Amino acid sequence: MQDSVILVINCGSSSLKFAAIEPRAGSVRCQGIAERLNTAEAHLAIQGAPDERLDQRAGPAEVLERIRPLLRDLAITAVGHRVVHGGERFSDSVPVTEQTLAEIEACIPLAPLHNPANVAGLRSALTHFAELPHVAVFDTAFHQTLPAKAYVYAIPYELYERHRVRRYGFHGSSHRYVASEAARLLGKPLGELQLVTAHLGNGCSTAAIRGGRSVDTSMGFTPLEGLVMGTRSGDVDPNLHEFLAEQTGQNLTQVTRMFNRDSGLLGLSGLSNDMRTLLAAASENPRARLAVEVFCYRLAKSILALCAGLDRLDALIFTGGIGEHAAPIRERTLAELAFLGARLDPELNRAHGAESAGRITHQSSRVLSLVVPTNEELVIAREAARLTEAAR
Amino acid sequence: MQDSVILVINCGSSSLKFAAIEPRAGSVRCQGIAERLNTAEAHLAIQGAPDERLDQRAGPAEVLERIRPLLRDLAITAVGHRVVHGGERFSDSVPVTEQTLAEIEACIPLAPLHNPANVAGLRSALTHFAELPHVAVFDTAFHQTLPAKAYVYAIPYELYERHRVRRYGFHGSSHRYVASEAARLLGKPLGELQLVTAHLGNGCSTAAIRGGRSVDTSMGFTPLEGLVMGTRSGDVDPNLHEFLAEQTGQNLTQVTRMFNRDSGLLGLSGLSNDMRTLLAAASENPRARLAVEVFCYRLAKSILALCAGLDRLDALIFTGGIGEHAAPIRERTLAELAFLGARLDPELNRAHGAESAGRITHQSSRVLSLVVPTNEELVIAREAARLTEAAR
Repeated sequence: MQDSVILVINCGSSSLKFAAIEPRAGSVRCQGIAERLNTAEAHLAIQGAPDERLDQRAGPAEVLERIRPLLRDLAITAVGHRVVHGGERFSDSVPVTEQTLAEIEACIPLAPLHNPANVAGLRSALTHFAELPHVAVFDTAFHQTLPAKAYVYAIPYELYERHRVRRYGFHGSSHRYVASEAARLLGKPLGELQLVTAHLGNGCSTAAIRGGRSVDTSMGFTPLEGLVMGTRSGDVDPNLHEFLAEQTGQNLTQVTRMFNRDSGLLGLSGLSNDMRTLLAAASENPRARLAVEVFCYRLAKSILALCAGLDRLDALIFTGGIGEHAAPIRERTLAELAFLGARLDPELNRAHGAESAGRITHQSSRVLSLVVPTNEELVIAREAARLTEAAR
Repeated sequence: MQDSVILVINCGSSSLKFAAIEPRAGSVRCQGIAERLNTAEAHLAIQGAPDERLDQRAGPAEVLERIRPLLRDLAITAVGHRVVHGGERFSDSVPVTEQTLAEIEACIPLAPLHNPANVAGLRSALTHFAELPHVAVFDTAFHQTLPAKAYVYAIPYELYERHRVRRYGFHGSSHRYVASEAARLLGKPLGELQLVTAHLGNGCSTAAIRGGRSVDTSMGFTPLEGLVMGTRSGDVDPNLHEFLAEQTGQNLTQVTRMFNRDSGLLGLSGLSNDMRTLLAAASENPRARLAVEVFCYRLAKSILALCAGLDRLDALIFTGGIGEHAAPIRERTLAELAFLGARLDPELNRAHGAESAGRITHQSSRVLSLVVPTNEELVIAREAARLTEAAR
């Protein structure tokens, strides 16, 4: 059977990424990214082609118009859209209809920074590719299997009932993908495995995955909770907001923005939100070193905490830009997991597990750790293929 | 040598507890509590005597005046004061002088709810017991040994430098006391043990104690962070404040108050902040059950997370009102620690470890767990004796 070709669209507030992917083979036929949308510097970069300036204030509609001719010969069969927040309504990907679109729009208050852009991209794509079926794939859907004890906050229960305030978790497509890849690499059925996955990129989250289902995760109501990230604080004392507002004269919006934009690796180091920069500077710069130490220690604590949902840990998976490429971060994190009897193999770790089916721990390690490159676009393409081919 | 007698004073915002204690034997010669201070219902209860109404709006000065004659025959040798927050200045108890008192006052902004009352009590006692040496014992002091990776938040580092925003941790006297009691019960030097202690009362916190030193703890800048408590939320997504302010029309002060006063077991259950009430109701009331489940699950996650500071876990210690008396909470928490190979002995647990030197786990358990009754007053008495007798 010839493979289909899925157009994957990830439309953020100022960027639109696209890729035409064969979902079975995983091969990418065409891909690109438009950045600084809705500004004077809007531009489009398509792999293998020179960068193009876009018209001033170009948005997703203009980008899709521009790429449409390129995609004509690829015989696209469906469009898969990344949507950040599916609330409690979506525990799986869905075909996009007027009704589901309205339901996705109803989730906007839960993710005011992300969902509006996702919906704008969705609407544009429905117009420009009106002849194709569209599928929405949610960052939150994979975590809808969390038990109540893991998703409720210890706040007045009415806030959950009225405002749907609960842990949702994010990076779901990535956690799901690397868990199934890990099962393949280990030659074991995913249904029998108990895993912790650590997605470490610009945003960072951990998930406990038991029998293929997410049972807990570090991100919460929003992607701010949990681990230290590039510019995000992760967990802080919930009394800090008021104290800082009083001491610094900022209002709640400004304090919240500070936790989201000026914190994390950037806030601690005062240098950069980029882990590569910090690792390069760490030997000379005590605050860069501190940022790295806090990042790894907090990650180790989160990994251990998530073991409360498990009987045993069959493998610890690192993925995402930092997880796949920053060997010193994996080394330091495993050193903080001495309690688990983790023992790194320095050579395998330096090679990012490339020669060892992902493995970076020594044969004698009491916990097995793997590097598994993530591929969120491929998950979205496969979801779109699964839903549209089943419907045909 | 005849034992000295220490007057221990714990002065809160509306209550003053006192006890005259022989620090070596641990025997209490006299104790009482004045409650609803500074209101029309101010009253004093002294053990073994009938309750007395106090003058309207009586404060700590009136209470100390009233109890002074009772204490005259006890030959009090020193006064020990509980002070909640010692900031970074106090990593140990100190004799109270004009200078240390000024330094304690300088810590007021760090604990605006607790320190002013502590200081008011201290000042009154200095007047009423001017002939005696006074010692301040801090809830935070024991945790001053935390490494930077455990105490810094991932927020702009200037907020630590300028405003001393960091993890302090609380319940230090309790964690320290039960750790040394556990060492005694286990017949091993504290310096060789790696422990996690869980103080579960109205406030709840965990601590990782390595060689007798606190290396991490769940409470943070204030006693709100970490575990689920009677009315306190513990950890939440730091974006919740802004979302809830927008959705409910509350301001930051009101939202913060809600996390401190209306959350935790009370908020989840809608029934009570008292664990006994919830355990009694749990079989009939799903939200009481949920509150208990979340409490235990979050506790188990915190215990595991703190193992990141340890190589091994020699014992897990339960203490505080809930930790000492709520067998079903210990049972459920250990069940959530299946990952550690924890195996309860139901009979020993029902007896709260009273017949087994504190032990509540089965001989076959891979982790040893003990119930160790705390005694914060005794710690304060011993600190006061240590500092004043050394000075003589």
